[in-house]
Amino acid sequence: MSNTDKILILGGCRSGKSSHALQLAERMGKRRIFVATCVPHDDEMIARVDRHRQERSDTWKTLEVPVDLAGAISAHSPTVDVMLVDCLTLWLSNLLMKTPDAAKIQRMIDELADAVKAAPKAVVLVSNEVGAGIVPENRLARRYRDLAGWANQAMAAACNRVVWTVAGIPVTIKPPFQNTAP
Amino acid sequence: MSNTDKILILGGCRSGKSSHALQLAERMGKRRIFVATCVPHDDEMIARVDRHRQERSDTWKTLEVPVDLAGAISAHSPTVDVMLVDCLTLWLSNLLMKTPDAAKIQRMIDELADAVKAAPKAVVLVSNEVGAGIVPENRLARRYRDLAGWANQAMAAACNRVVWTVAGIPVTIKPPFQNTAP
Amino acid sequence: MSNTDKILILGGCRSGKSSHALQLAERMGKRRIFVATCVPHDDEMIARVDRHRQERSDTWKTLEVPVDLAGAISAHSPTVDVMLVDCLTLWLSNLLMKTPDAAKIQRMIDELADAVKAAPKAVVLVSNEVGAGIVPENRLARRYRDLAGWANQAMAAACNRVVWTVAGIPVTIKPPFQNTAP
Repeated sequence: MSNTDKILILGGCRSGKSSHALQLAERMGKRRIFVATCVPHDDEMIARVDRHRQERSDTWKTLEVPVDLAGAISAHSPTVDVMLVDCLTLWLSNLLMKTPDAAKIQRMIDELADAVKAAPKAVVLVSNEVGAGIVPENRLARRYRDLAGWANQAMAAACNRVVWTVAGIPVTIKPPFQNTAP
Repeated sequence: MSNTDKILILGGCRSGKSSHALQLAERMGKRRIFVATCVPHDDEMIARVDRHRQERSDTWKTLEVPVDLAGAISAHSPTVDVMLVDCLTLWLSNLLMKTPDAAKIQRMIDELADAVKAAPKAVVLVSNEVGAGIVPENRLARRYRDLAGWANQAMAAACNRVVWTVAGIPVTIKPPFQNTAP
Repeated sequence: MSNTDKILILGGCRSGKSSHALQLAERMGKRRIFVATCVPHDDEMIARVDRHRQERSDTWKTLEVPVDLAGAISAHSPTVDVMLVDCLTLWLSNLLMKTPDAAKIQRMIDELADAVKAAPKAVVLVSNEVGAGIVPENRLARRYRDLAGWANQAMAAACNRVVWTVAGIPVTIKPPFQNTAP
């Protein structure tokens, strides 16, 4: 790994994404920004945010950025060693709650991908896989699932490293492993 | 890859299955049939079908085959270089809407697996992973999920190559990669 | 593989987990206990349990253990070659139905992990990935999903081998495969 790596950590719920992202990011230097996309608005979320905060050492500065991730990365990446964004799926929820305009959301996804690629220092992104269950009956949930899948593809393309987490185990899928079988 | 490969591309929603399937299939020759199992019946599906059609070059002939996939493969594989079937999960929906007879559906799955194995030219199958979410409350959804899982296992066994897609990244899981770790 | 391996088999619904677990376990010796966590209470479950029982040869002794898995492993592992527990996700359902006390459930997960590590003979655990779909609307389902993810992480950490199954194909993710790409 190099100190300008762009890494996407992707996995299901409770698959160890956030912990693995922290471990990777903490190897990349001392000046660290944790970008929380979560704006907690109920007890369940407040508890989750607190648990995550306790997992981080106090060497992290925390920014709450519910919407303008591209702007935050462009502004702060030059000033630190590593930015960790946790997580993209909540960011997409925030966008969907703000606007019904799919083209605008798509543009913001593209801008984020561009900002990640252009960042001068390491960026680690955490995102959820939400598309491997049954098709949701709810139309908004289907739209969200589509958006999340597109965002994950865009970020995976922008990053030089993609890690799929299962049961706490990180599986690096980009760069692809060599399938040496015949 | 050889020009008689049978390949299953499997992944969650918006994981890049269809695009990867197209890329693979277009390397296998010029005479191409795209088998669409989707019979679009609402605006959302029409939009999805149109988007997929625009992604294909006009070197593809399109067949709409909602039910008899085994027959279509047996009839057309000898006449082209490659057939691409997109996707098996919609095909199973079509079967479930036609008949409540589980044994009959199982037989059609087996016939499809046989037709794929017997096809003289390349066949690429696209299917969704739908079983990695929470158990659905709806009994029909659970039946569908079971069927989809069995169909995916039958097709994975019939194919010589299986690719799992995550965030647009293809991970070849059959033939299995060599785990060279101790 | 050695005859004291601790193996977690993890995958979505109908991904071939149970069949693969049986194949692995049957290589580990003749004295075998199958630990069923399922206490079937409707026709759908009775049918599923029967189907699984038919897949096993009669060299297996079956124990029904809905709750005290740690105790069953500690008591019986010294007396056999291999114990196969199928599955952890139903066990967690059983715990959730018995108690609303999250700390108590967490403690039982930890005790199970300890019992698996301490077992003198091979143990094979089967569990479902349930966290890769859309966030459930139902709060209990979200709690269950969290618990299942934590349990899977704890068992993956306790085991020396973890296998992810997709469409009947086992992919060994622990020990990690060597990513030999640059």
